[in-house]
Amino acid sequence: MNVESKVEAWALPQGFVWGAVKAGIKASGKLDVAVAVAPKGARATAMFTKNLMVAAPVTVGRRHLEATGGRVSVVLVNAGNANCATGQAGIDGCVKTCVAAAESFHCIFDEVFPSSTGIIGVPFPAEKVVAALPEAAAALGSSAEHAETFARAILTTDTRMKVAHATVDVGGVSVKIFGAAKGAGMIFPQLGPPHATMLVYLFTDLAADTAELDALLEPAVGRSFNCISIDGDTSTNDTVLLLASGSSGVKLDARVGPAFLSALQLVCESLAYQIVEDGEGVTHVVTLAVSGARTEAEAMQVARTIAHSPLCKTAWSSADPNWGRILAAAGRSGVEFDPVAATLKFGDVLMFEGGMRAVGFDEAAAHAVMLQREYTIALDLGVGTATCRFVTCDLTEEYVRINADYST
Amino acid sequence: MNVESKVEAWALPQGFVWGAVKAGIKASGKLDVAVAVAPKGARATAMFTKNLMVAAPVTVGRRHLEATGGRVSVVLVNAGNANCATGQAGIDGCVKTCVAAAESFHCIFDEVFPSSTGIIGVPFPAEKVVAALPEAAAALGSSAEHAETFARAILTTDTRMKVAHATVDVGGVSVKIFGAAKGAGMIFPQLGPPHATMLVYLFTDLAADTAELDALLEPAVGRSFNCISIDGDTSTNDTVLLLASGSSGVKLDARVGPAFLSALQLVCESLAYQIVEDGEGVTHVVTLAVSGARTEAEAMQVARTIAHSPLCKTAWSSADPNWGRILAAAGRSGVEFDPVAATLKFGDVLMFEGGMRAVGFDEAAAHAVMLQREYTIALDLGVGTATCRFVTCDLTEEYVRINADYST
Repeated sequence: MNVESKVEAWALPQGFVWGAVKAGIKASGKLDVAVAVAPKGARATAMFTKNLMVAAPVTVGRRHLEATGGRVSVVLVNAGNANCATGQAGIDGCVKTCVAAAESFHCIFDEVFPSSTGIIGVPFPAEKVVAALPEAAAALGSSAEHAETFARAILTTDTRMKVAHATVDVGGVSVKIFGAAKGAGMIFPQLGPPHATMLVYLFTDLAADTAELDALLEPAVGRSFNCISIDGDTSTNDTVLLLASGSSGVKLDARVGPAFLSALQLVCESLAYQIVEDGEGVTHVVTLAVSGARTEAEAMQVARTIAHSPLCKTAWSSADPNWGRILAAAGRSGVEFDPVAATLKFGDVLMFEGGMRAVGFDEAAAHAVMLQREYTIALDLGVGTATCRFVTCDLTEEYVRINADYST
Repeated sequence: MNVESKVEAWALPQGFVWGAVKAGIKASGKLDVAVAVAPKGARATAMFTKNLMVAAPVTVGRRHLEATGGRVSVVLVNAGNANCATGQAGIDGCVKTCVAAAESFHCIFDEVFPSSTGIIGVPFPAEKVVAALPEAAAALGSSAEHAETFARAILTTDTRMKVAHATVDVGGVSVKIFGAAKGAGMIFPQLGPPHATMLVYLFTDLAADTAELDALLEPAVGRSFNCISIDGDTSTNDTVLLLASGSSGVKLDARVGPAFLSALQLVCESLAYQIVEDGEGVTHVVTLAVSGARTEAEAMQVARTIAHSPLCKTAWSSADPNWGRILAAAGRSGVEFDPVAATLKFGDVLMFEGGMRAVGFDEAAAHAVMLQREYTIALDLGVGTATCRFVTCDLTEEYVRINADYST
């Protein structure tokens, strides 16, 4: 898949300004407070983690969207502290930063949409965010560089920026989508309707109301962010925000809808893939193509069980064609199938058929497939016609080193 | 917990002989075929993996127990090849070894109980097992050394033998239980009534029929082997066999039952703990004590989610008191609780209370607890009175090395 390494000026939607500053929250001293400001009248919808332990900004962000009916003027993100498991003080701190941002950026406090990512359970340094706001206001701009600082400031253990964009042509007018994401660990987003430390911000200059945006975001997320996993740990802070400035002058209608949804879908799929691609310690990106299932949900259940199997993931790290581990994982997934009717392929190499190792099974060919950084494992369950594609990765010693060391 | 490193002669139940030989199945050239022979009239019950992909010996063993109504004369185990995903040829090979063992040990072929552990999907070398039987017959004996060779031959990636024993005094007569187990990876046994590559053999000289043994094995397994996890991967071959020779002359009755069940439970708990203790790459054994749950099933669901969280497991490997990861795992477990009512302790150190980091939280003290090889993490959900104890371990770079290298 195509991974973008920079922001293109022509790809940015109109109406937004972006900026970021160093507020001293990240121990590294890097950019850690990101701000995006939308024009008056911008409309938004969001999906949040289904984890029962939710961070303060998730609670506050959800409340703000409800209170305003989906109006968002300012996106305020800090990295380095998740503001989760911080009690009432965490909520109070989050609200305080929203109030201060509302003053700095001239809007109502509940038009500020807050996000946090980083260590859980450490008191939230609201004062550092507040103190950084004047500098953040001065740093705002609409250039590619400005959008890039936003995309960089939201990163934590990520090794690279994750951005994607798409353009929809509507009668000669371009409607643009620009997305920025962070996430490299604690990645198994399970986002629910207004409930998801993957952070994703999707900016567009389409004109649409919140209900319309809702109807677009859910299917786009369902086939992208909800179909990836790095480690199976659903975060307390996962958030996807879709924010529409309306500045293109193009209103969402039956003619624009399908094309826009396709474009949004592409941006989400690209960002989702980039998140796995940059997963902690990842050396192989594996796409699980499960087919022949009775239902899509059953296909997903099989894919998730394989994606979360330490034995499958470690075998992938060494390009070991240990296909038995994949079947063992599928077998414990809780989904009924007859192994005799199932088939398994690594790339184009047939591994398993008729309940046993495929006739002509070629271990060297399978190993060659697995030496690639990106490849597909296709499991057909042989019991139906439903399918799913799920993107995941290997489990390496480096993943263990990162997470044994990093006190997030 | 007390871990035994040798077999004591006085602890062995009467009526059995054990032996093991090198049949050339393990690449290492170590002992790999183990045999135990019970006296005529011995009765057994077994629990097998709930994985839908089951190994040939599981299919055959289940069939044999049904055919004989629970009579087992010979236990025939090979290590080095799991005989799983081997199709009809695997079944035929397994049957062939049972037929040959029946001849060697003078019983009916379906009185032979087969087990296999090792690599999945590689054709089963039945001829090697068959060829080794004469030597195995010559190697049989009832001494501690004989029982030890049995316990050693069933090992694969295990670094040590796992045995446990208990004695029940019944009016001056000793009824004995001796258990041997293997298992270091692919360990998250989910055993079901006559359905469980953890292998466990429990030998006793009690006299009891299969239905009576059933009623003893299920509760003993439910609170031991079903309450441990190393990596969350339920094997295709897991088997627990309880085999009663009757040679003590003591019949199971209302007087003997409770004491015997307690003793059996202790043996199972010891073996289960030893399996985690010797888990692949394990440097810390963590007992999760979940309390305050609505039901035991919900307590188990929370414990399992924590036990399978790579982020929790990697933090344990470095003694990192990252309690937020534990709450995040509990929060995504699907069990409803109010974080504000929950408390979390590492050993005796209170980490979390009232929805936030505990007042007086002492990171150094928590770190000291976690530097121990074995300790308890106690999570009280604050919503009920149900509890569970679940034994698990950390995830280390060594685990990844072992499983990236070992082509099981």
